[in-house]
Amino acid sequence: MIEPFDDNYFMKQALIEAQKGAEEDEVPVGAVIVAQGKIIARAHNMTETLNDVTAHAETQAITAAAGAIGGKYLKGCTLYVTLEPCVMCAGALYWSQIDKVVYGARDEKRGAGSVGNLYHPKTKVVGGILENECAKIITDFFEKRR
Amino acid sequence: MIEPFDDNYFMKQALIEAQKGAEEDEVPVGAVIVAQGKIIARAHNMTETLNDVTAHAETQAITAAAGAIGGKYLKGCTLYVTLEPCVMCAGALYWSQIDKVVYGARDEKRGAGSVGNLYHPKTKVVGGILENECAKIITDFFEKRR
Repeated sequence: MIEPFDDNYFMKQALIEAQKGAEEDEVPVGAVIVAQGKIIARAHNMTETLNDVTAHAETQAITAAAGAIGGKYLKGCTLYVTLEPCVMCAGALYWSQIDKVVYGARDEKRGAGSVGNLYHPKTKVVGGILENECAKIITDFFEKRR
Repeated sequence: MIEPFDDNYFMKQALIEAQKGAEEDEVPVGAVIVAQGKIIARAHNMTETLNDVTAHAETQAITAAAGAIGGKYLKGCTLYVTLEPCVMCAGALYWSQIDKVVYGARDEKRGAGSVGNLYHPKTKVVGGILENECAKIITDFFEKRR
């Protein structure tokens, strides 16, 4: 069976969100949340614009997805995010009880994985989808700012 | 020197916030953020009202305090919260670079302390202030709902 929308497709959508962040001078991390093959939330990091350290792509997407669903739990949903979630975001994803987290680039320094498994035991976590593209958008951003 | 406003005073203010939560049928956790002896943000858990798992007392208070200060970093500030912060909130406090975190009751199950030290190395963390009152408001809440 041909899957019209696969992990690569949705990660590309997350990359489009990250690119919007870069254009707003935000650290370019993007995310989408998918339910039943459809994107129900899109977000990018907005910590500068909103002057709020809690406004990561993931937390913004969780809030938006809950609004779209009309319930605060994201069972049956998958989050695609260009960078490995940090401790805060892994903790937020824990509370959301989301089915699956798919991330692009690993974050060796601030990624939740460096601390341990902070996700809900029911949450499946996959890393490395479009890893190079996802890493490049961030390294390009920081190189430009140097 | 007599300190007019000490840790107990500010924790009582956090308890007043928690009580507001209980009245709105939210898990009663309250928080205040203090800068130079003054409360600059007050919040309580609003996950039900806002239909958003990220709307803990601490994250709401961080967002409000950043708004009050006009900058996203909470250096020089202290958070008082009635319950030990969870992983998500410890991660958010990390990003805020807050000076000090003072909590009331320990959260054996979901407290960040059960995972390791997730706070910023510069953040001082103190637990057990008005521990009994802070624990009681939560146990009373869950007993009523049973």
